[in-house]
Amino acid sequence: MADRVLVPWAQNLENAPAGIAGDVFAGDGEPAADLSRVGFYVVPYGRGQRLELMEHMPGLRAVQLLTAGYERALDHLPPGVELCNGRGLHDASTAEHALALVLAAQRELPRWAGDQAAHRWEPHYTRSLADSRVLIAGYGSIGEALEARLVPNECDVVRVARTARPEQGVHGIGKLHDLLPGASIVVLTAPHTPETEGLIGAAELALLPDDALVVNVGRGPLLDTAALLAEKGRVRAALDVTDPEPLPAGHPLWEAPGVYITPHVAGGSDTFYPRARRFVDEQLRRWAAGEPLANVVRSGD
Amino acid sequence: MADRVLVPWAQNLENAPAGIAGDVFAGDGEPAADLSRVGFYVVPYGRGQRLELMEHMPGLRAVQLLTAGYERALDHLPPGVELCNGRGLHDASTAEHALALVLAAQRELPRWAGDQAAHRWEPHYTRSLADSRVLIAGYGSIGEALEARLVPNECDVVRVARTARPEQGVHGIGKLHDLLPGASIVVLTAPHTPETEGLIGAAELALLPDDALVVNVGRGPLLDTAALLAEKGRVRAALDVTDPEPLPAGHPLWEAPGVYITPHVAGGSDTFYPRARRFVDEQLRRWAAGEPLANVVRSGD
Repeated sequence: MADRVLVPWAQNLENAPAGIAGDVFAGDGEPAADLSRVGFYVVPYGRGQRLELMEHMPGLRAVQLLTAGYERALDHLPPGVELCNGRGLHDASTAEHALALVLAAQRELPRWAGDQAAHRWEPHYTRSLADSRVLIAGYGSIGEALEARLVPNECDVVRVARTARPEQGVHGIGKLHDLLPGASIVVLTAPHTPETEGLIGAAELALLPDDALVVNVGRGPLLDTAALLAEKGRVRAALDVTDPEPLPAGHPLWEAPGVYITPHVAGGSDTFYPRARRFVDEQLRRWAAGEPLANVVRSGD
Repeated sequence: MADRVLVPWAQNLENAPAGIAGDVFAGDGEPAADLSRVGFYVVPYGRGQRLELMEHMPGLRAVQLLTAGYERALDHLPPGVELCNGRGLHDASTAEHALALVLAAQRELPRWAGDQAAHRWEPHYTRSLADSRVLIAGYGSIGEALEARLVPNECDVVRVARTARPEQGVHGIGKLHDLLPGASIVVLTAPHTPETEGLIGAAELALLPDDALVVNVGRGPLLDTAALLAEKGRVRAALDVTDPEPLPAGHPLWEAPGVYITPHVAGGSDTFYPRARRFVDEQLRRWAAGEPLANVVRSGD
């Protein structure tokens, strides 16, 4: 019987309930495990995802991903196998980086880094996050995590999502143009879909007040790069994702005035691993107890 | 009768209760006011403090400072005049900058700024604030404002002040050596006094775990510069205040590994002015109503 698990961390086996046995495969080399006996496969995180291995597991009943995206996994998923994703595991890391970008832009941290390199001590007053109004576009679990971090900074938060949820104070995307003129900071946390592509273009940037800040931790194509460049610094930006991505050397965005760039690192911090390991522990406990798994994105029925 | 006020912002006169009249003096040039009629003087903020003017106000009954420090004002304060300081007006700005420095160091923002200048897109995993333990040394009103901003970032906060306040979970400074080994981040928010000078020296740095971060938004001399340099990057630092200050060009701290510097800008952001103006409005209202003023640091009796 295919009753064994294949997990990325030895700790998951150590913490597993009685009756759960298996092997560790972190994505390096080949798994030292009898694939025919694997019933639950936790796909390694990072470059060594090895999605195709599931095609060599005839007894497979469930697959756990550690990413939120799961489209590529569907191409390899055998019929009747349940698929779970890693929704929520990156929220804390991404929200934390979004907050870091907001604060860095408002308090001019990139400027001070340049001044440090030049041994220059020239203080001046800066903008602040306090007293600003922050519009979160694509308000979901990352937006919630970001809002929790923004509120004690004494700023207002305006929530916008695809669909209005009036009972939760969430505006629908149709209200975006009405809301942009009152926002001094806009944070994009939406996924990339046909509806969100170009969500912030020339028309939307034009509605923002002078010196507003657009932060993108969603996906590059949410923000129209050419339209941002055309603003010539009137609207500032702090971008963890870009279009194109990776941004090639020589691209004008690198040197655009008021634009600060980090190389798609919002989700990738030490925050992720303990949360991911704990989540796998919990899934194994559910698996052993015969309970429904969490984060199911395709049923095994 | 000396019944007029001298305030730094016209808005204060516009918002003043009936019966309050006076003049605006923002610190530039000389005040266009009859100093003999000034009963309440709000000292302008910034370089044009003009503390000595109070010696030319024979009817003066109260002086309001917009700074927390008031030692220099005492040198000019006539007998019998009440003195109020600006305690709390900088808390939001300073706590916000301290949070920005913590996040910048953990998420490597200075590195990404350098990579942007070099058109380099080379992501890697970083540390996070989440899951860390932050020790606030000098836990007072700024520490409280910082803690409020840290907690939703999913980290533990340890409070240390001169005097233990067990009912509020505040450890006394005598426990510092016991607490340092468990802290991955230490934020210094204490004032500079004989007791706090060298609060973090070689012995304290040695107690911190490898790769710990020391953030200083208090005063430069709280942290022993030579001891920090001797760590050669084993302990990182993000410093808004330095010793000496301003830091001269060529000083080794500018290029010390793992040290990030901003030029004493924590308190100086847009956050300050609206809070300061509102506070002056409130003091004028109390003054007009004959109520006790807030933030009295020397009584007029």
